[in-house]
Amino acid sequence: MRLSQYFLPVLKETPADATIASHQLMLRAGMIKQNSAGIYSWLPLGLKVLRKIETIVREEQNRAGAVEMLMPTIQSADLWKETGRYDAYGPEMLRIMDRHDREMLFGPTNEDMITDIFRSYVRSYKDLPKLLYHIQWKFRDERRPRFGVMRGREFLMKDTYSFDIDEASARLSYYKMFVAYLNTFARLGIKAIPVKADPGPIGGDLTHEFVILAETGESEVFCHKDLLEMAPPGEVDFSGDLSEHVDKRRALYAATDETHDEEEFKAIPADKQMTARGIEVGHIFYFGDKYTAPMGAKVMGPDGKEHVVQGGSYGIGVSRLVGAIIEASHDENGCIWPKSVAPFGVGIINLKSGDEEADAACESLYSALEAAGCDPLYDDTKDRGGVKFGRMDLIGLPYQVTVGPRGLKNGVVEVKIRATGMKKELSPNAAIVFLQTEFAEV
Amino acid sequence: MRLSQYFLPVLKETPADATIASHQLMLRAGMIKQNSAGIYSWLPLGLKVLRKIETIVREEQNRAGAVEMLMPTIQSADLWKETGRYDAYGPEMLRIMDRHDREMLFGPTNEDMITDIFRSYVRSYKDLPKLLYHIQWKFRDERRPRFGVMRGREFLMKDTYSFDIDEASARLSYYKMFVAYLNTFARLGIKAIPVKADPGPIGGDLTHEFVILAETGESEVFCHKDLLEMAPPGEVDFSGDLSEHVDKRRALYAATDETHDEEEFKAIPADKQMTARGIEVGHIFYFGDKYTAPMGAKVMGPDGKEHVVQGGSYGIGVSRLVGAIIEASHDENGCIWPKSVAPFGVGIINLKSGDEEADAACESLYSALEAAGCDPLYDDTKDRGGVKFGRMDLIGLPYQVTVGPRGLKNGVVEVKIRATGMKKELSPNAAIVFLQTEFAEV
Repeated sequence: MRLSQYFLPVLKETPADATIASHQLMLRAGMIKQNSAGIYSWLPLGLKVLRKIETIVREEQNRAGAVEMLMPTIQSADLWKETGRYDAYGPEMLRIMDRHDREMLFGPTNEDMITDIFRSYVRSYKDLPKLLYHIQWKFRDERRPRFGVMRGREFLMKDTYSFDIDEASARLSYYKMFVAYLNTFARLGIKAIPVKADPGPIGGDLTHEFVILAETGESEVFCHKDLLEMAPPGEVDFSGDLSEHVDKRRALYAATDETHDEEEFKAIPADKQMTARGIEVGHIFYFGDKYTAPMGAKVMGPDGKEHVVQGGSYGIGVSRLVGAIIEASHDENGCIWPKSVAPFGVGIINLKSGDEEADAACESLYSALEAAGCDPLYDDTKDRGGVKFGRMDLIGLPYQVTVGPRGLKNGVVEVKIRATGMKKELSPNAAIVFLQTEFAEV
Repeated sequence: MRLSQYFLPVLKETPADATIASHQLMLRAGMIKQNSAGIYSWLPLGLKVLRKIETIVREEQNRAGAVEMLMPTIQSADLWKETGRYDAYGPEMLRIMDRHDREMLFGPTNEDMITDIFRSYVRSYKDLPKLLYHIQWKFRDERRPRFGVMRGREFLMKDTYSFDIDEASARLSYYKMFVAYLNTFARLGIKAIPVKADPGPIGGDLTHEFVILAETGESEVFCHKDLLEMAPPGEVDFSGDLSEHVDKRRALYAATDETHDEEEFKAIPADKQMTARGIEVGHIFYFGDKYTAPMGAKVMGPDGKEHVVQGGSYGIGVSRLVGAIIEASHDENGCIWPKSVAPFGVGIINLKSGDEEADAACESLYSALEAAGCDPLYDDTKDRGGVKFGRMDLIGLPYQVTVGPRGLKNGVVEVKIRATGMKKELSPNAAIVFLQTEFAEV
């Protein structure tokens, strides 16, 4: 993409109402614009990151055997009355009357609706297990929306729902999602720790939050340090036994302030104890017959009898992750995107737009990097060098290539790695080969 | 995908409330489920078609130089009050009060919001032209939703907005979209005719609807037959002169009942006169300063003076197209998907699941067709052959491969082309080569 033909409205000033880094940087880097409290437009640069995250989340769900569908944003209140949630949900639910005075709502979650869909079609244990998911905009009417996309009102979420004949099978579905989440977050370039969550009245041990560590995290995390060092499961057979991947993590202490047990924590060797702030980016939850019982979702079992189906839900905050990744990966100059979710791979800075030689060198780099799959953003504007450098650091592409008349005289361009600041001078061809190699593995 | 692991709830009976073919077939083929009046869940098969259409629409927008972003579904009423549309819109607008009693609405369209975004950032003619688009769910609270996704309440639309310094430049943006639409619909496998639309109080000649012909179309179309035969522009230079592609179409008569002029129509040679029913799938519209003037969207011109920006909007009904394509392409047995938007490329029918030889032949075909990029759906269920044939015809994949013990004895499988019903017996390897070739061009 040529910057002159793009829409990248960066801001010089930090907006006063943005208090955390991700909110400030997303506004300044032209990724989002606030339209109302807690409601944002995703400008082109922000949307690219959002879609890359969404794609990775989708690929890992598919790999785990979950099947994608899409439920609507607007739901009838009727289903929520069946489960008793219409009254229970409180003012965070955006309640709507349509033109015929029917009670509707903008879905904050979809357990009720997916259970209705399930019971409409599935009658036999032979069709189980089923893992269905969708990636859809949700709405929660937060009293005080804040922190940009981290606690907005309209947000994009991936939510998966499992349906199983009994708790033992449901555990297998739960494990699939546990492993899929580990792989998902690893591919997103972040370290997410599975932390035991509060099961509430449902009870049991099958509920985890996935948190990433960042200073601005909303909750305190207490955990065994080794959790941070474990490699993701990677390619596994999702129809096989996944318990090794889950068990070795669950064997290590990890809790938020909500579920923290000081005594258990103290039992960890002192040098392995870790306390930090965490941001929740995923939550998986087995809830048994909480929705299927009141809604009568039953299947015929192998024993010829009807069984109430056992369910779980599994969420990932897709839009929240954009902010969370920035919280975990930025510096005073701007964002530092992991390669897998960077809006563009490489920024090309033309230090003298209009200069015949510089323009030609940039054009040829631009075509070569496009062909090499590095998805370059070419700053072909007439802005001063300082403006170009600052903007490129702000938007945080993994690599920058600076092309100027002085370097070209010596046959070199400058390649900079955004994360480390490391720079090296290379011939244009060597730069292309270097960058192509860097992206080959993504 | 293996059918046993998918979620494809086909219905035996035609639902009584579905009156047109696309609505009936989408329900029967397990593509959608109605959740409330005019509000649908997209089941896995339907979602795959929706996403394929969306992807083609996106690619052609990008090719034309439009830049993608994403505006939220929920908007503040304030912007709509600025343009006077809040009162004008009527009961089709879904009006919402949030928990702080602020007036909000579920966006039925986005001229007001995009104009606000534009005026927040763009100050100079040097940043023009701008073509911005998004693909987002909209809501129109139809009094009587009907015809399934063809006239639903929650629907997916691609809407592009152009911003130009004057009418002459705006015409160039309009032409870009005109050409992009021709290419888009051609890639979707349908013939869409640009028909002059009613400009209303705005006046001028820059407004067209794109309609496809189908018996169930909502409006009468009168046009010159040659319009149906013209090849799409294909690869063009969008920064160059596009008028030849537009002018040669506009030179031929085409109107709906709304804009029809019987005398002009009669001037067409009799054998070239055509009358048919049409479904609107796109609408492009130049409206000048209708939104930019009341909202004060101005830029500094090359003359050093402020100019009110001239705008246009360009819509494609993405979810509606799923139904419209079925209306244009089905038979008594089910859907007949064009290759470019088919949910899967090839259906594999195992006539004797459980038979060792049949299973092995199907598995090997399945892997080979996956590797060949034919996106197979393998019916590995224990259902009877008749059920499998009927279901495969119903969902309408372009090709079917039937594998049975009798054929295998002779070393052949049967390949069927869904659209023509033509069948041929081929060795499994020849079938793979044939199908791979068929999909190589998509």
